[in-house]
Amino acid sequence: MIPAELRDQFRDHPTLGFADWVLRGIGQVVFQNNPVSGAVILGGIFYNSWIYGTVCLLGAIISTATAILFKADKGLVKDGLFGFNGALIAIALVAYTSPHFTTGDPPNGHLWLYIILCAAFSSVLVPAFSALLGPHKVPGLTMPFVLAGWFFLGALLQFSTIDVSNALKPTSPSDFTGPRPEYSWITWFHGVTMGISEIFFQDNWVTGVIILVGIAINTRIGALMALMGSTLAVATAVFYGAHDEAIRDGLFGYNAALTAMALGGLFLVLNLPGLIYTVIGVLVTARVWASLGIFLEPSGMPVLTSAFVFVTWLMLLAKNGFPALIPVAPADATTPEDNLARSRKFQKR
Amino acid sequence: MIPAELRDQFRDHPTLGFADWVLRGIGQVVFQNNPVSGAVILGGIFYNSWIYGTVCLLGAIISTATAILFKADKGLVKDGLFGFNGALIAIALVAYTSPHFTTGDPPNGHLWLYIILCAAFSSVLVPAFSALLGPHKVPGLTMPFVLAGWFFLGALLQFSTIDVSNALKPTSPSDFTGPRPEYSWITWFHGVTMGISEIFFQDNWVTGVIILVGIAINTRIGALMALMGSTLAVATAVFYGAHDEAIRDGLFGYNAALTAMALGGLFLVLNLPGLIYTVIGVLVTARVWASLGIFLEPSGMPVLTSAFVFVTWLMLLAKNGFPALIPVAPADATTPEDNLARSRKFQKR
Amino acid sequence: MIPAELRDQFRDHPTLGFADWVLRGIGQVVFQNNPVSGAVILGGIFYNSWIYGTVCLLGAIISTATAILFKADKGLVKDGLFGFNGALIAIALVAYTSPHFTTGDPPNGHLWLYIILCAAFSSVLVPAFSALLGPHKVPGLTMPFVLAGWFFLGALLQFSTIDVSNALKPTSPSDFTGPRPEYSWITWFHGVTMGISEIFFQDNWVTGVIILVGIAINTRIGALMALMGSTLAVATAVFYGAHDEAIRDGLFGYNAALTAMALGGLFLVLNLPGLIYTVIGVLVTARVWASLGIFLEPSGMPVLTSAFVFVTWLMLLAKNGFPALIPVAPADATTPEDNLARSRKFQKR
Repeated sequence: MIPAELRDQFRDHPTLGFADWVLRGIGQVVFQNNPVSGAVILGGIFYNSWIYGTVCLLGAIISTATAILFKADKGLVKDGLFGFNGALIAIALVAYTSPHFTTGDPPNGHLWLYIILCAAFSSVLVPAFSALLGPHKVPGLTMPFVLAGWFFLGALLQFSTIDVSNALKPTSPSDFTGPRPEYSWITWFHGVTMGISEIFFQDNWVTGVIILVGIAINTRIGALMALMGSTLAVATAVFYGAHDEAIRDGLFGYNAALTAMALGGLFLVLNLPGLIYTVIGVLVTARVWASLGIFLEPSGMPVLTSAFVFVTWLMLLAKNGFPALIPVAPADATTPEDNLARSRKFQKR
Repeated sequence: MIPAELRDQFRDHPTLGFADWVLRGIGQVVFQNNPVSGAVILGGIFYNSWIYGTVCLLGAIISTATAILFKADKGLVKDGLFGFNGALIAIALVAYTSPHFTTGDPPNGHLWLYIILCAAFSSVLVPAFSALLGPHKVPGLTMPFVLAGWFFLGALLQFSTIDVSNALKPTSPSDFTGPRPEYSWITWFHGVTMGISEIFFQDNWVTGVIILVGIAINTRIGALMALMGSTLAVATAVFYGAHDEAIRDGLFGYNAALTAMALGGLFLVLNLPGLIYTVIGVLVTARVWASLGIFLEPSGMPVLTSAFVFVTWLMLLAKNGFPALIPVAPADATTPEDNLARSRKFQKR
Repeated sequence: MIPAELRDQFRDHPTLGFADWVLRGIGQVVFQNNPVSGAVILGGIFYNSWIYGTVCLLGAIISTATAILFKADKGLVKDGLFGFNGALIAIALVAYTSPHFTTGDPPNGHLWLYIILCAAFSSVLVPAFSALLGPHKVPGLTMPFVLAGWFFLGALLQFSTIDVSNALKPTSPSDFTGPRPEYSWITWFHGVTMGISEIFFQDNWVTGVIILVGIAINTRIGALMALMGSTLAVATAVFYGAHDEAIRDGLFGYNAALTAMALGGLFLVLNLPGLIYTVIGVLVTARVWASLGIFLEPSGMPVLTSAFVFVTWLMLLAKNGFPALIPVAPADATTPEDNLARSRKFQKR
């Protein structure tokens, strides 16, 4: 792990501070308030595609700058809590308008302006969801990205200057019936690793591994949880016989990996009931991803990270009803390791 | 009516207590915190189908046990407030995956595990909605069932090991145009009685009558309200010329019957403005069932009890804006008769 | 401007008071608590169609009377805060069931009863949304109209006694691809003026101008904002190449005009950051209208004013997170001019 002094050396720097906050913003997509984690993850995205790397960085810059423009709380800005939605929204808008999803195509001028407005709007949504959920000590998660994404992706169908990829074409859902597909080791290996990289829309298992390393730099438990979430999601999809291609593309895993990280140690202390609760959350998230896909298919819209957001919100809203769980307020949630240590210290007294 | 000592004799029993709570859970689907009501209703379901009876019982057991596992408030558990969503979810998952909707088909192993996870998740949702609505003194109603149902039924379309019935196949809504259907006494008789039994997905008018008896054991006014709700819904559907088959299957009535019970004396004291308010709620619910059916048809998902939940939530949220209404907090809402007596006593002082 | 004594001379009148509140209700659709504004706007609607004028008036009467029946707060009733949703819902139900959208057709008896129930229900929704949003100092806006509209319009497809117009027929969304349409001055002129009249479902640019005059009677800034919102929405639709017909029908503008009025001086003081924030809101609203159209197309339902409501709610919920903005509580929000004057006075002290 990186010592705190090293990790935070540029946090309050007059000129380099902004770069630090933007990198933390990229890290915060996977809950890591650490510029080194953000830099490693950004490197992983660049490894797959310089286009996605560039727009990810610019998205984080725009949304962070918007927050500063309207004088948002400096502590939140410095923790990267305005950057992560912009980073995701910029990648999403390029991914769903590019003929080549895997590496993306360079945006035209119309799309650039579109990305800027959408990333700025995602920053407005951050305090909106804080206002709604703050009193419950539940974080807004990536809902600003999801909502801005649905609002701006849906509108694209009505504009002739930006075309959308086939992934966004509305269709009527069909029932996937037997026989159960034949799965191979590729199903498992790609399913699990791309379940991590798909969080950032990257179809590249190496990127998935790099992102895991980026997380592990800041928290080993967090990286383990991400891996566990993606693996369990693949396992349940294989058990119930889902489309092989959907599993291999990491589509079952990316929401589940995020739920695992959020519930498994970060916003709930990782005791035994907390672990069982996290496993339930992961298994449910894999279904909810599948279900929301059906609900959204007639309008063509993608699920994004909404399955993770809805399940995690609901399970965190329920926390005070179950005294077997030990909740951690969003403002105090640093890493699973820290939360565990503080909780033990507190119990000893 | 059953005396309170008799009704509550097993509530705190060390070994029989659990059975008492599970039966109350079945009764709570129609707001009856009474194990005898629950037993009679369960009998009514067994009368129609031993399969539905069995899964209903198991669903209530699983969701009640989940609440105990995470150390939920014992008072809520004993009142059956965790069991009712599990009871409904288990029936729903069997009903929408069975080739024969009327009696259901025995679930395979995959579906059993699916039901267990879904019923457990429904228990997690109970305190989640309490957290959101508790400050407004509005109960969560059957929303945990509805949401878990949509999440888990939608996902089934993506798995090959469990097939869904034709009722879940996505279609494009069409406008039902004239001439107005010819209705008969069957429309009315089946419409009203199945409007009660359909609350538990039972296509059987005898079951509907048994459920009414189960309610009347605990509250005469409640049973009258259920009957009134179902009847008014049939009347408005006949007046506006809805599909004869939909009316006869009790589809217009089951949400309206629940709204009538909730607003008519239970969460609002049954004075004259309260009665008018309940009638408005019932008529609106019959429309909202029809409307949500159109909204959900492209994704194939069923309305479940969402029409009742949305209308009742909104009308209870509004209660403090209308001083002509006398609200009853969920924790104090026992039966319409009790609420009325307490309200009169209070006014005399 | 009209002096306050003249404007409020009938507000507390024993017999003419009710007429005053109903006219304010029509004015409140565009945030004007002024019976003269309401009368001018009603005149503008009558200019286009005596049918729409009549149902608008009756809708406002029914919803105002419902609020009085349940003893709602008299201050809110007198400010027209129960009338505006009923006015809109009545026009909407006629517009979407008439073969001729532009002028509407006289409702049959079934539809009249339908309108009465729906307008009454919209009044119930007013305190429901106040309960949810009041603690955040965010107004309910036209959400009661939108929700009642979706509930009651959707249900129409299931009833044979009332037919719906082609505008409500469910379809699958298609992607609008290039070449970019050729726009003319008509696109701009009709787009901007009908962007105002479409708030009341009127396809008539003269009505749009009369409504602007009605607003200007009470607030010049408000009228300017409405014009700015509609113009910016047309500009962004032209820039991104939207359907010429959709722009000319005012469909891009009517939600944006409402967002501009709400954020531009009314619920936020009109300082420079507030103006930038309003422009972001207007541009986002134009996209959200387009996006919600795609989401709703498979069920056939119209967007109504939901794009304005969602964007304005979210941006007002966020206000406390951005100290550059000066919020005005709904109870204190009169006109942009008054808000500005009070804010300056407050800063001087």
